[in-house]
Amino acid sequence: MATDTKREHQPVKGPRIRKGLVVVNTGNGKGKTTAALGVLFRAWGRDMRVKMFQFLKHTGARFGEKRAAEKLDIEINALGDGFTWRSKDMQRTEDLAREQWEICKQAILSDEHDVIILDEFTYPLHYGWVPVEDAIETLKQKPHMLHVIITGRYAPDELVEFADLVTEMREIKHPYKEQGIKAQPGLEF
Amino acid sequence: MATDTKREHQPVKGPRIRKGLVVVNTGNGKGKTTAALGVLFRAWGRDMRVKMFQFLKHTGARFGEKRAAEKLDIEINALGDGFTWRSKDMQRTEDLAREQWEICKQAILSDEHDVIILDEFTYPLHYGWVPVEDAIETLKQKPHMLHVIITGRYAPDELVEFADLVTEMREIKHPYKEQGIKAQPGLEF
Repeated sequence: MATDTKREHQPVKGPRIRKGLVVVNTGNGKGKTTAALGVLFRAWGRDMRVKMFQFLKHTGARFGEKRAAEKLDIEINALGDGFTWRSKDMQRTEDLAREQWEICKQAILSDEHDVIILDEFTYPLHYGWVPVEDAIETLKQKPHMLHVIITGRYAPDELVEFADLVTEMREIKHPYKEQGIKAQPGLEF
Repeated sequence: MATDTKREHQPVKGPRIRKGLVVVNTGNGKGKTTAALGVLFRAWGRDMRVKMFQFLKHTGARFGEKRAAEKLDIEINALGDGFTWRSKDMQRTEDLAREQWEICKQAILSDEHDVIILDEFTYPLHYGWVPVEDAIETLKQKPHMLHVIITGRYAPDELVEFADLVTEMREIKHPYKEQGIKAQPGLEF
């Protein structure tokens, strides 16, 4: 776990460029969506205009983040059918993802937000339901100060290449596998 | 970025044990604190009793998370002197960290919380200001359902060994180094 620099606690040097970033949280570990939620929370604390779009997750699901967002009047737009690898109607899953992406595109180009989260957007990209080129083309046209955060495993190489900030959440230890512990409300959903 | 399993979208199998977890977010990448904040936000959405303790960060700092927390009546307890590697009075930094740990200990053992975050607690452990054994001994005595989330680089091996869930946030791409972009409010603090 040792790392080589002490940069984290040093003041940031270099030119003070301000711009909205394209951020990707990927990898097989925990924390991709929760880190995006943390940004949402933080940005909301600064009165920034935040919006989260969830792919795949079921439209009516009452996850903890949705409950919290409702209390705060933050918009979380989930459009999905609760996709799992056992889904019978994969065509519907794909169609919903494409429909959601069209809504996201409009939001990205609208200049009405400061932070937009595309939660689990990597899956539609990875499986080819949404072309990566289309996503990148849209991100190129985003308002200068808008931050876009994309989460999910299997981030395509082209997206990683294009993004400003990419973090891989790596699983070091996982209680479900090792101890047979189930997902805990609050902590994980 | 490719990973080998599709588990993330599969329902969790195995015995349905419920217990509070000890979670560690470590590594040199972004997202350690923000993922903890995301959990805080999510758990708050479920009306869980949440509390965050920040080590090292300056007591009076007005980070985005603090502003958000104040609006929501969530307690974030920061006790530090804004530690950097240029600090002149390292003894004071150490003393504040130890003092903060004593407060955390009481909170962990009090059974008054559902989720406690010890933000950047790995540093006092790594530098030996707080003995790792003391931390683990306290965690062993925590209430059964309490989740404790510890963030920061250099998580000591004994802590990783003891924790239930450990994720390493790995830096793949970082805009400050590569593009000279400064830390962005809302996104990072």
